[in-house]
Amino acid sequence: MGKGRLEAFSDGVIAIIITIMVLELKVPHHADIEGLTPLIPVFVSYALSFIYVGIYWNNHHHMLHATKSINGAIMWANLHLLFWLSLIPFVTGWMGENHFAKWPVICYGIVLIMNSIAYTILVKLLIRHHGEHSLLGTAFGSDTKGKISMAIYAVAIVVSFIQSWLGFALYIVVACIWFIPDRRIENKMNKEEEPYHG
Amino acid sequence: MGKGRLEAFSDGVIAIIITIMVLELKVPHHADIEGLTPLIPVFVSYALSFIYVGIYWNNHHHMLHATKSINGAIMWANLHLLFWLSLIPFVTGWMGENHFAKWPVICYGIVLIMNSIAYTILVKLLIRHHGEHSLLGTAFGSDTKGKISMAIYAVAIVVSFIQSWLGFALYIVVACIWFIPDRRIENKMNKEEEPYHG
Amino acid sequence: MGKGRLEAFSDGVIAIIITIMVLELKVPHHADIEGLTPLIPVFVSYALSFIYVGIYWNNHHHMLHATKSINGAIMWANLHLLFWLSLIPFVTGWMGENHFAKWPVICYGIVLIMNSIAYTILVKLLIRHHGEHSLLGTAFGSDTKGKISMAIYAVAIVVSFIQSWLGFALYIVVACIWFIPDRRIENKMNKEEEPYHG
Amino acid sequence: MGKGRLEAFSDGVIAIIITIMVLELKVPHHADIEGLTPLIPVFVSYALSFIYVGIYWNNHHHMLHATKSINGAIMWANLHLLFWLSLIPFVTGWMGENHFAKWPVICYGIVLIMNSIAYTILVKLLIRHHGEHSLLGTAFGSDTKGKISMAIYAVAIVVSFIQSWLGFALYIVVACIWFIPDRRIENKMNKEEEPYHG
Repeated sequence: MGKGRLEAFSDGVIAIIITIMVLELKVPHHADIEGLTPLIPVFVSYALSFIYVGIYWNNHHHMLHATKSINGAIMWANLHLLFWLSLIPFVTGWMGENHFAKWPVICYGIVLIMNSIAYTILVKLLIRHHGEHSLLGTAFGSDTKGKISMAIYAVAIVVSFIQSWLGFALYIVVACIWFIPDRRIENKMNKEEEPYHG
Repeated sequence: MGKGRLEAFSDGVIAIIITIMVLELKVPHHADIEGLTPLIPVFVSYALSFIYVGIYWNNHHHMLHATKSINGAIMWANLHLLFWLSLIPFVTGWMGENHFAKWPVICYGIVLIMNSIAYTILVKLLIRHHGEHSLLGTAFGSDTKGKISMAIYAVAIVVSFIQSWLGFALYIVVACIWFIPDRRIENKMNKEEEPYHG
Repeated sequence: MGKGRLEAFSDGVIAIIITIMVLELKVPHHADIEGLTPLIPVFVSYALSFIYVGIYWNNHHHMLHATKSINGAIMWANLHLLFWLSLIPFVTGWMGENHFAKWPVICYGIVLIMNSIAYTILVKLLIRHHGEHSLLGTAFGSDTKGKISMAIYAVAIVVSFIQSWLGFALYIVVACIWFIPDRRIENKMNKEEEPYHG
Repeated sequence: MGKGRLEAFSDGVIAIIITIMVLELKVPHHADIEGLTPLIPVFVSYALSFIYVGIYWNNHHHMLHATKSINGAIMWANLHLLFWLSLIPFVTGWMGENHFAKWPVICYGIVLIMNSIAYTILVKLLIRHHGEHSLLGTAFGSDTKGKISMAIYAVAIVVSFIQSWLGFALYIVVACIWFIPDRRIENKMNKEEEPYHG
């Protein structure tokens, strides 16, 4: 089963998710510059989520680039990931509108964890489909980066009960960790394609 | 006539449908966790519709994968299906906001039946275009699964006049039946592609 | 210059236009079936516009199928068409919400005329680019269907000043004329591809 | 790394941006023609932004057409451009709703400058990836057009503190400069492809 339409559909959904988030930036009804002040946290929240969705698109792109074929289970795992991604605009708007208060920040973290789990399931199914020793299997290895992220999300959620700004800061930390696209696959691929340059 | 743009356009429309449904999850204006309580039925309703649209995309994908070419009637049958799919966000929001009350649940069922009919028309036109003995024709056969679904939808609508939660439960049952992607085509294709392994 | 991305971009924009129109079908806050009554004209208006946008997508698809390459002017003519198509959701919502009153029906007609003009400009530029004797040039010929449509739109606008329902009925007439995809190109192509079967 | 999905994703995001802007054209609740009067500045604002996003899509198309491969940094530079493009609907709505008042016009200019900077970064990274003497490198040269645009934006912002309509007029001037798609690349490509016809 080809991966073309899966990529196209995922691109479509992720493109819509990343763009409808901006609709939470409600146009102020007055023309004063002060009208923008309450929008600053919404904007900060939007910018962080834009980066997160960008990271997911980037890694999704790399991962499917290394994929040769898919099956029914992989399609559902992919839709499961898209489901949790689709909840990011909601928690983004809630967190921004309430100036990074406790519960919105906690829920933002829960949605991030669910996305992380959904992504891991998708990777596992792709590796099972292609074999442990495939490009994908060896590139991901023990997935240290993914495990660290989930640990930080968990800490951020706990910390948010006391000081929600700290939780938010930890989400920025994870985004920084992932900002660089997943070079593991890229490196692996280059090595396999140019075996004599290694 | 090629099927490429039909797939691309359908993917685009379905991607938008599946994503704009989340806009019904209105961001609460307060930061309390209690603010999320009224959203629970909206969320449950969203999750079910996400699965339904996912099922349609999945089966649409499989069906067009087995399609070689299309014609004008097929393009309109496809747009007809997209029309009924586009009404899912409306009935989803109505059903969720009104906690699975009688009329919203009934209308949800009517939209599901219309989608089911539209899908059947599309399949019939594709089979007529490719021939009864084509991959598509033999894969669908008597379409037992589709007929059972429509029967359950009809029962769900009738039952909803008395107890709407029961109707909703029946929609979940149909979603479970279809959750597994349409293996009929997949199996057929594998058999034809690998004739000596059968 | 390839036509691939022009098709992809147009598909994206048209897919969004056809889908966001449904957002005008505002979810009623009550669960009574009576809550749907005021939505009936909005729904009728939506259904007509869905067919119109579907017709444009269909014809756009056929036209670009017969296109070999594009240039800068064609890209802008295409964006010009997309601009007027993007106004259809606005006039659709206005017409539906005001139960086919005079001014909304007139404005709906003006937007349809502008779309028709934009489409004609695009066709003319494509024919100039490919040559009068190309597949496109001979397929369109004198464009009788397009001219009749514009005449009916003009009559509908004038008639709407007296009786807006009559104007609306005329828009349905034009939709019926175009419902059948543009067989002119399809026929031409089949003839050229199978020259010995003619 | 292939450029296919980058193009597809960018097309998707730009298609959504150009289309959701029309949602700011709120449907009037009355059927009088007078109801459209307050929408005129919103419409003018929408038309200008539609042209701007169209210009970006056009140039993005030309630029990636001349691109052979991409890397991680280019993907992020592209997402950075999409981020600033995604803010155009917000400033468009704000400027239109407030009849081209001082602060909205200034902010519109700031967003245009940020888009211009983001585009320049993307071009620089693409040139660095392909080499100074590549098609892209020689086609862009000193990027006079880009520098003139940024200078006019800066003047427009300063001028808007005194007379915001003048600032808005300057944005129209820049749009006119760019209206013609970037023929630099097109010319270069034609020359390289047809070396004996030069």
